[in-house]
Amino acid sequence: MSEAERVARAALTRVLEPGDERGGRWLREFGAEGLLALLASEDRPEGALAGTTEKRMSGLRARAMGLVPERDLEAVHAFGGRFIVPGDTEWPSQLDDLGDARPLGLWLRGRPDLRKWALRSVAVVGARACTPYGAHMAATLAAGLAERGWVVVSGGAFGVDGSAHRGALGAGGATVAVLACGVDVVYPRGHTELIGRIAEQGLVIGELPPGDHPTSSRFVLRNRVIAALTRGTVVVEAEYRSGSLVTARCAQRLGRFTMGVPGPATSGLSAGVHELLRGEGVLVTDAAEVVELVGDIGELAPARRGPVLPRDLLDPVSRRVLEALPARGSMAGREVARGAGMTADEALGRLYELHSLGFVERVHDGWRLTPRTSRGSNARRGVT
Amino acid sequence: MSEAERVARAALTRVLEPGDERGGRWLREFGAEGLLALLASEDRPEGALAGTTEKRMSGLRARAMGLVPERDLEAVHAFGGRFIVPGDTEWPSQLDDLGDARPLGLWLRGRPDLRKWALRSVAVVGARACTPYGAHMAATLAAGLAERGWVVVSGGAFGVDGSAHRGALGAGGATVAVLACGVDVVYPRGHTELIGRIAEQGLVIGELPPGDHPTSSRFVLRNRVIAALTRGTVVVEAEYRSGSLVTARCAQRLGRFTMGVPGPATSGLSAGVHELLRGEGVLVTDAAEVVELVGDIGELAPARRGPVLPRDLLDPVSRRVLEALPARGSMAGREVARGAGMTADEALGRLYELHSLGFVERVHDGWRLTPRTSRGSNARRGVT
Repeated sequence: MSEAERVARAALTRVLEPGDERGGRWLREFGAEGLLALLASEDRPEGALAGTTEKRMSGLRARAMGLVPERDLEAVHAFGGRFIVPGDTEWPSQLDDLGDARPLGLWLRGRPDLRKWALRSVAVVGARACTPYGAHMAATLAAGLAERGWVVVSGGAFGVDGSAHRGALGAGGATVAVLACGVDVVYPRGHTELIGRIAEQGLVIGELPPGDHPTSSRFVLRNRVIAALTRGTVVVEAEYRSGSLVTARCAQRLGRFTMGVPGPATSGLSAGVHELLRGEGVLVTDAAEVVELVGDIGELAPARRGPVLPRDLLDPVSRRVLEALPARGSMAGREVARGAGMTADEALGRLYELHSLGFVERVHDGWRLTPRTSRGSNARRGVT
Repeated sequence: MSEAERVARAALTRVLEPGDERGGRWLREFGAEGLLALLASEDRPEGALAGTTEKRMSGLRARAMGLVPERDLEAVHAFGGRFIVPGDTEWPSQLDDLGDARPLGLWLRGRPDLRKWALRSVAVVGARACTPYGAHMAATLAAGLAERGWVVVSGGAFGVDGSAHRGALGAGGATVAVLACGVDVVYPRGHTELIGRIAEQGLVIGELPPGDHPTSSRFVLRNRVIAALTRGTVVVEAEYRSGSLVTARCAQRLGRFTMGVPGPATSGLSAGVHELLRGEGVLVTDAAEVVELVGDIGELAPARRGPVLPRDLLDPVSRRVLEALPARGSMAGREVARGAGMTADEALGRLYELHSLGFVERVHDGWRLTPRTSRGSNARRGVT
């Protein structure tokens, strides 16, 4: 994608709301630059962008006029972030399953490569006002997933989301928060420290440009990104007709696995999960059961799993991490970082990427080369 | 079946253990009288009852010699019980699905007609050492089933079984205890009063002759009767590899519905249920969901539901109960009993039978004629 198209897409994240399918169709028709010009224009050619109300069009025009997307891109770069668009090597191609509702682009904070992380990721979502049982299950599941080398994706909210992120972080694992606001906006306020920690150790991502605030429809539409990004969604606690069930149903429509953690039949906060489990959802009680299920999708659709790349194609930093690992046995993430001469968070990001690519695997709380990589490295090092 | 065959079957319940399939095949080959004579004989014809060990045969011979089944039949009649065999109008034909493991006959205590009651019955089973949550769910489910006119079948044990029976009794409902011992033996001792109450208001049934005691294999084999008798089995709480799961799997093999009540993933007493729900079991959280599921089987297999009989074919006592109901509106069970000139328990037994036959239905805590019966009775009474 040309630089001008990328900049126009960044601008469009200030104009079109997330998940706007009509906007997605226009984008296909006119390209980002063309669409932006049409939207900002006072007198459009006859028939262009037809089929919507004049009121809505003037709303879009008001948003599209006088935008300076370069300023947003600079602001994001200033705090170490970036903006990625379809076609970028970091773009997670599974988002294309959303069709015209695909995000225009994604704003990111954090070091790891989103595409590689998303290859082996599971969403853990649920009620904000969860019970202690729900918080416990979210944290335990997320820690178990992290220990098995899976990336935990959630929405950064109070309750189940927060417990899931914390469970992954606490296990020295990888986690992604998908926000319904700008990645520099901390919402909820009470999660200032948590979201900061995720940006350090993992990834904070979203469709909204810097400074933009969440709305209730943005929360709902954010859920489709969580569903599309991951191999499956686990709902921990949810009332009837709750937002987490929207994520689960969206995951279902996209052909991802939907799972639910059972709870007491007497708990209103499990009622939504039980409804899901009476339909297509699969009951899960621990991380092993989740991995047993979502791990299979790789077998069915090998493209998703990511090929084992020849190590010479890896970037120099990832190669350094790989070289730091012993030919036999495992090593703690902290030691790998020391060996590779980088921070623990940076090493962790690379290790999860290398995991997605099949070079390394996680064992207990350490990391080791996969047998295949190990053979290759041994041969190179002259070890038999 | 001839009286001699019936008496021989009663005798055989002292010889063959429940669920003995080889015994079932012999029974088909020789008939009950013939088999009993062969088993008791010191020198059998060459080749008869072949294919078993001499040790086992001498064990069976020791049991078969000198039996006086008339004494068992008298003992059961003395406490108001009876012995039924395949072919009797009260025999529940769904037990024939057990093939050669079908009970030889059933010993019964209680007034109601087992066949009619079993037509609309659901098993509610689970752990003896259940949690307060399990006890609550068992009682609530059973009460809800009773309120919807369904008969609750269980095993009379401590824990989930006892709570299910009590829940049904407490709702003025119908319940059947299937024992792994003689129907005059109270096991467990702590359920003396409960089992007595079930024999008054419902049915206490079993394969073992009067005075016989339970063994661990008898408990396991009793479960197949619970599974076969009912339209579906609900497991409320169960550990991995527990007896309740045996009932559920047996129900599955017999083409009955298997259901489970979810609980906390952290509870060992829900682990077995969750295992079931990860397989073929259907998650249920209340009686309405159970009825929604098992009610359908009637649509699929109308024969099971029992035809609506012309009321003139009803016995005089059931006709009296029917006449006691008002042409419009409902009436409490106690009032029906008064109107029909019988005890409340007797009336209840008849009302559930009439329900199975489609003459009456249960509403809240009363009973009313079904629209069809009501039209018939109105016409007869000259009401338009």
